[in-house]
Formats: sequence, C-alpha cells, structure tokens
Amino acid sequence: MAGDGKIRPSDLPAAALRERLASGSLKAVDLARDCLERVKAEEPGIGAWAWLDPDFVMHQAEALDRYRATGRAIGALHGLPVGLKDIIDTARIPTENGTAIDKGRVPEKDAFVVERLKAAGAVIMGKTVTTELAYMNPAGTRNPHAAEHTPGGSSSGSAAAVAAGMVPLAIGTQTGGSVIRPAAYCGVTGFKPTFGAIPRTGILKQSQTLDTVGVFGRDPRDAALLAEALFGHDPADPVTQPSPRPKLFETASSAPPLPPVLALVKPPGWDDADADTRAAFEELAQALGEEQCFEVPLPAHFADAADLRRRINFAEMARNYYHYAKAGRAQLSETLQEALQEGSATLAKDYLAALDWRDVLYAGLAEIFSHADAILAPAAPGPAPEGLETTGDPIFNGLWTFVGTPTVTVPVFTAGNGLPMGAQLVGARGGDARLLRTATWLYDWLDRPS
Amino acid sequence: MAGDGKIRPSDLPAAALRERLASGSLKAVDLARDCLERVKAEEPGIGAWAWLDPDFVMHQAEALDRYRATGRAIGALHGLPVGLKDIIDTARIPTENGTAIDKGRVPEKDAFVVERLKAAGAVIMGKTVTTELAYMNPAGTRNPHAAEHTPGGSSSGSAAAVAAGMVPLAIGTQTGGSVIRPAAYCGVTGFKPTFGAIPRTGILKQSQTLDTVGVFGRDPRDAALLAEALFGHDPADPVTQPSPRPKLFETASSAPPLPPVLALVKPPGWDDADADTRAAFEELAQALGEEQCFEVPLPAHFADAADLRRRINFAEMARNYYHYAKAGRAQLSETLQEALQEGSATLAKDYLAALDWRDVLYAGLAEIFSHADAILAPAAPGPAPEGLETTGDPIFNGLWTFVGTPTVTVPVFTAGNGLPMGAQLVGARGGDARLLRTATWLYDWLDRPS
Repeated sequence: MAGDGKIRPSDLPAAALRERLASGSLKAVDLARDCLERVKAEEPGIGAWAWLDPDFVMHQAEALDRYRATGRAIGALHGLPVGLKDIIDTARIPTENGTAIDKGRVPEKDAFVVERLKAAGAVIMGKTVTTELAYMNPAGTRNPHAAEHTPGGSSSGSAAAVAAGMVPLAIGTQTGGSVIRPAAYCGVTGFKPTFGAIPRTGILKQSQTLDTVGVFGRDPRDAALLAEALFGHDPADPVTQPSPRPKLFETASSAPPLPPVLALVKPPGWDDADADTRAAFEELAQALGEEQCFEVPLPAHFADAADLRRRINFAEMARNYYHYAKAGRAQLSETLQEALQEGSATLAKDYLAALDWRDVLYAGLAEIFSHADAILAPAAPGPAPEGLETTGDPIFNGLWTFVGTPTVTVPVFTAGNGLPMGAQLVGARGGDARLLRTATWLYDWLDRPS
Repeated sequence: MAGDGKIRPSDLPAAALRERLASGSLKAVDLARDCLERVKAEEPGIGAWAWLDPDFVMHQAEALDRYRATGRAIGALHGLPVGLKDIIDTARIPTENGTAIDKGRVPEKDAFVVERLKAAGAVIMGKTVTTELAYMNPAGTRNPHAAEHTPGGSSSGSAAAVAAGMVPLAIGTQTGGSVIRPAAYCGVTGFKPTFGAIPRTGILKQSQTLDTVGVFGRDPRDAALLAEALFGHDPADPVTQPSPRPKLFETASSAPPLPPVLALVKPPGWDDADADTRAAFEELAQALGEEQCFEVPLPAHFADAADLRRRINFAEMARNYYHYAKAGRAQLSETLQEALQEGSATLAKDYLAALDWRDVLYAGLAEIFSHADAILAPAAPGPAPEGLETTGDPIFNGLWTFVGTPTVTVPVFTAGNGLPMGAQLVGARGGDARLLRTATWLYDWLDRPS
C-alpha cells in the first residue's frame, strides 16, 4: 500500500508489529506517527473516524515507550494502536453513538473492552464511525477500495480504518451482520466470537440477545491477538461467564493437527447471491477436494432464522432505544423509525417464542460440527455494492449472530470488479480458538502460489 | 400431634430424624411406615397427595436400611421421606401438573432436584397436589389446621403434607407466592432461595424469570437441610451458576455472632392486612426493641412491583402454556384463561421494560441490607382465609420473587381464630445461609418462654 514502494509499519499485520515493538526494532511512537500520517493522507477520502486526536495518540505512545524502556511490556498489545467503534464508551472522550441526539456526549467511564485495552498496553487510536445507533442508516464512510462503494456497516469506520492501514486493529459490534459484512467488503478479517465471550458493559445496548463485540485485523492471527485481550467475565453483563481465557493467538498461529474439513453451507439467500460469490465458493470447494470440503444442507427451519432474529432485534431495540425515539423522533432516520415501529408492535409471546428457537436451531448444527471443523459460507451476497445510501445486505450474517456461534471472515476472494470478498467460517459455540486456527490455515493455504 | 400422647417419628423435625437414623436408633422403614400411617389417617381429610404408592415408599426405605447396614449413608438425606409438588418430573412416576390435559403423563427423566434427592439418599414419598399448572385455581386440598380453609397455593399439597406430619420435608415452587404463602397458612417453614440457586430442569416452566424452587420443613433448620442438597448448577438451566454449595444447614444451626437486626417493612398492601397480622408485627417489633428492629420504608417505586411482576409472569406464561391453551382451552379454568389472555396481549417492549426494573428495585434494597441482617415482613395478609375456592392473596410474596431475594417464613404467630401466621424474613441475594441462621434465631427466640 505504501506509495513509495517501501514497507511502512502501517503496512504490517499487528502480530508482526508486536514482535518488532518487543524487540525494540520499532518504537510505539514511530508506529503511531506512521498510522497518523496514513490518517492524514487517507481519512479525507474515507471518513472512518468520528474522533481522533493526534496529540492524544502520540502522548500514549510516548508513555508506552518510556514504560518499555524499563524492560517490560504492559501487556499483549503494548504499543499497538486500536480503533474503537463510536458506540463504545471512552472516559472523557466523546462517544456519540452515530446520532445527533448524542452530540457532545462524553462518558464518565470506560467500557469493559477499553479497560482491557488499556491494561494490555494498547494505544487508543480514536473512535470510528458507526451507522446511526449501530443500525442500518449509513454515516458517509467510504470503502477504501472504491470510494463510491459502501464499506458496509454498522462498524463502518472500524473496517475501513483497518483496510486503509490507518490502524492495525479495531473493535466493532455485530447485532445482525455489523462485523462480518464490513470486514468482507473492506477486504480485512472480521471475527465475531461466541455470544457472551466479550462483556458488553459500557457499549450502546441495541439488542441484549444479539449484540456481540467483534474485532478487525488484517488476518485471522491479528483478530485472535486482539480478541484474546478482550475475552472475559463481567458480572455487569449477565451473558458472560467466568471461564479460563482461551489461548486464541497461540492456537490461531499454530498448524492444525490434520488438514481442516469444511462443511460448505448455502444458506437462505444463496440463490440471490451474485455470480462471483457463488463461483468463488464452488471453486474453493473443488480446490479443497471432497476429503476436505463437502456440501451440507442447513436444517429446514433455518429458513425462519432471519425473521426470528429480526423479531428479537426490533423488539429489544424498541425497548432499548425508547428514550431516543422519545427525545428526538424527528432526528431519527426513517429506516430506524420503521424498525422501532415494528419492534414496538411485537407481542411478548412472539418475542419469547423467537428466543426459544435459538437453541433449537443451534442443536440442528451439532451433526455438522461432529463431521467438520467449520462451516464455510459466504460473508455477503457479493462485493461491496455501489452507493453510500445503504450498508449492504446482512442476509448471510444474521443467522450466525442469532445462534451465537463464533464466525470469522477472511479476505481471500476478489470479485470481477476487483473488490474483495470474504469467505466466512463458522465454528461451534466456544470453539473460537480452533475456528481461528482453521481461518489462518485457509488464509495461508489460499495465499500459497498454486 | 400424636393422639396417644407418645412422640412418633413423624412428629419430629427432619434434623432430629436424621440424627436418629444415623445413630441407628431409628430405621428408615420405621420412619416410612409411621409417615404412611399418618397418610392413611390424615389424607382423606386433607387431599395433599396427587400420587403415593406405599409399596414404593417401603421398598426405597428397605433398600436404604440395607445400604446403611454397610456402615455408610448415601448422603445427607439418607432415609428421610420427601414430598414433591406434582409439577416436578419423576421418571416412571406420573407427573400431571395439576391439569386434566396431562392426565396419565409419565416423564422419562427425573428433574434435577429429584436426581439430587436420590443422590442424597432421600425416600421419594410421592407427588403432592398442585393448583392447576401451578397457577391460582385450587385443586381441593384442605388446610390441616382447619378443613374449611385453604392451605394456600400453588404448592398446596407440599405445605399441607408437612403440616399434617405426613412427610417431614417437601419441595415446591414459587412464581408469585406459592411457597411462602402456603407455608404460612399451614404453619410450617417455607424457604424460597435466591433466584437461580436451585436448577429448574425438569420442572413445569411457567415463567423463566420468576419460577423458583423452594422447600418446606417444620423449622428453618429442616428447610436448610433440604435446600442444601438441592443447590447447584445445571447448564440446562441458564439462570444457575457454578458456585460453591453454601453450608446452609451448618450455618442455619449455628448461633449468630451478634443478635440479628431486622428491618421491619410494611410493603404495599400492609394497610389492607388484617388486624391480627398488623398487631403481631407491631408487637414483635416492640419485643425485639429498637436496637434489634427498626421500621424502614420501601423505596417508592416498589408500589409498581406487583404490576411489573404480573406483566412478566403472564407474558411468559402465555408463551410457555401456549400448547395447553391450544390443546384444551375448554379444560382450563377461567382464572387461568384470563391470565393467558392478558399475557398474550402484552407487548414485548413493555415486557422488556418490566424486566429492566428487577435490578433497579433490588438496588433500592442495598441500603436496607447494609444496616440490617434481614427484612421482616408479613408472609400473608392474615391467616388462611376460609373457603377452598381461592388460595389466598400473594400480595406480600410477589415482590420478593420479582427481585430474586431469598425469603423464608417461620411459623411464629397465631391469629385470633387459632390459625397459624408466618413471619417472613428476606435476605440479600446470595445470603441464603445467613438468612436461615437469622430465621432459626427468630424461631428459637420466640419459642423461649417469656
């Protein structure tokens, strides 16, 4: 990506940066400065940042270098800049949730994940642009690969910032397809862990049953590095559990004991996916061969998954965004208002019935996971669509968010128009580390010259 | 209670029975036979049992005596008969949920609590009468203290069976006031632990947010003995957590380090409570003195607690009893049908709003629990009302079920008409052992000749 042909720090994946920072061959201030130069050059054409203060970035990097001079790292992310979706509370730093209603809002407390980043020695790079209240209405961010195309949403800025090399790592959230879709559109890796793996305390609550913190990096190893620092238990988020922190990075960086076996799934919507997408998956399946890739149908009731997920999302959003609707209905987009209206009319018994389907659907995947390391499926119906009016179609994401499985998209395909496309891998609940190992394997395997 | 003046095993509390069983001075078969004689004598006038097979009881007791002859006990309840509300699944034993729709239903698997009873060496005495689907429509059980009065509900049979000496211990459930109210009406101890302390797997689901397993015994020590065997974690019941099992019995049997301090609360409905009840509490407060008992007002928003709890209960019941409503609306009582109709019309956003109040209300109690060992409050507006058409008013129970605090009623008062009344003690979430210790203290203190 460097125009002058030289490799710049901001061209490197986070794992490589981490090694250089540890060996002393790279200073945190040099990395921060390089990222800031990239921001200066790229940001005007992309619009990935909602808040970024270069002095604040340099100040953190300097402090981290001073600390490193004592011979120790603060933690696993020492000196690595990380972008934060602007629905994640940052103490004394504006967090505006992508809505004019929250203009000037400055939280008192850091979100759980921000506390974790600080404890790991990360540099808080800034706040990335989110769609309006993390729903569908875009906020103008452009795709780094094609300025007239959407970067996807709702974690638009996080995906675009990583793709443009402005920051090596970023955090987003997914309630429908808000991590996997923008990652695929922007040609980076997006990882949404098992539901409940990362506490959501201090993050805008849209839908408590679905909201999941996810991460962006260049490749699956980077995603593993960042996610591992965030996994944990917080009694304030009742869907999290005390459990040992999995060694995501070590596992993702290791070779699988056997060549992974993938179950190709053509989920509802497959027939409407574009030709490039369908061809890419058929070719990949062929290249992997029958031993390593076989097609399996999803159980029939997955046809309802999108509707069930939507019902839960809208009902919970109608409750959680009540004060937004009340305070400024005129300031909410029509898209959001329609969703809130639908959610407000949902009956509790129908909402509760939809909740009951989560585990029923997941149980239908057990047979697949007993035969395959991961499900292979498209991350989106095609490359990033043209236009900035929508963020694209989350049809291939919502079902995995609904059942709470970990899912990762790796940037391994290129569409006919030159835009990146992602291969999505889905693992069993709790199988995050192994899923990332499989993702690394696929990423490296496809990178190999044939 | 023994007509001939001699003390019979079935007159003794479970803790005393346990000691005699352990020392060999009492055989499980002798205890079982005595309980069965009591059943023979009392059951025709009370109607506490939905299913009871004397041969099955004796068979278990014989096996337990044989096992004991090897020198060991199977577990903490070795040889103690326990009654089970007939909404608790028992493998190969009918579990009819108090509705004609489930006539002849025989589960394949034991509920979690039944597995626990068997592992603890208890004798499964039989299934006790429940109101229709554990809601308000009574099933004919009579109060052992006055045949024309209700025993309370929905755990009617469990409370009545213990009160009549037919079984020393029994299990029930509380969604509104279904453990505390019948215990108070029948003059026994009822204990509803912290929400989530006892897994509900294999028990009729009425309202997942409220359903709580509770226990009945003669005194707080007995309740502690049984509850301790049931506390645990079951991944199949997501509201339970892995945590060390508290020493309920040991703590409940020990003296408090300091005289307990009680916060007298007059909850919404106090002014409509009968004169006996109000007088009993005023007198108790006076007897305890200012050092040990002071009155505190509940935070104002507790006025809404009953409505919020009801909204959640009915909405979840409408979902969970959907197949009952569908299969046999004609076979459901009008009371239940009305509740199901109300629940069916509840909007998801209102349901979710009510859920959000749980922790807000609980937070309002923190100040009280920082100054007092327990809240003291009436268990019911008066003694068991006359008539078998209703199960009485749960107004003093629902708010504690809603906020998920442990609560226990001890049979320490007698109304003007000679019927028993309970003093309810409420503890902080998780403070079950200390609450039971306070309850024992109060029970013994009031028993002392003044």
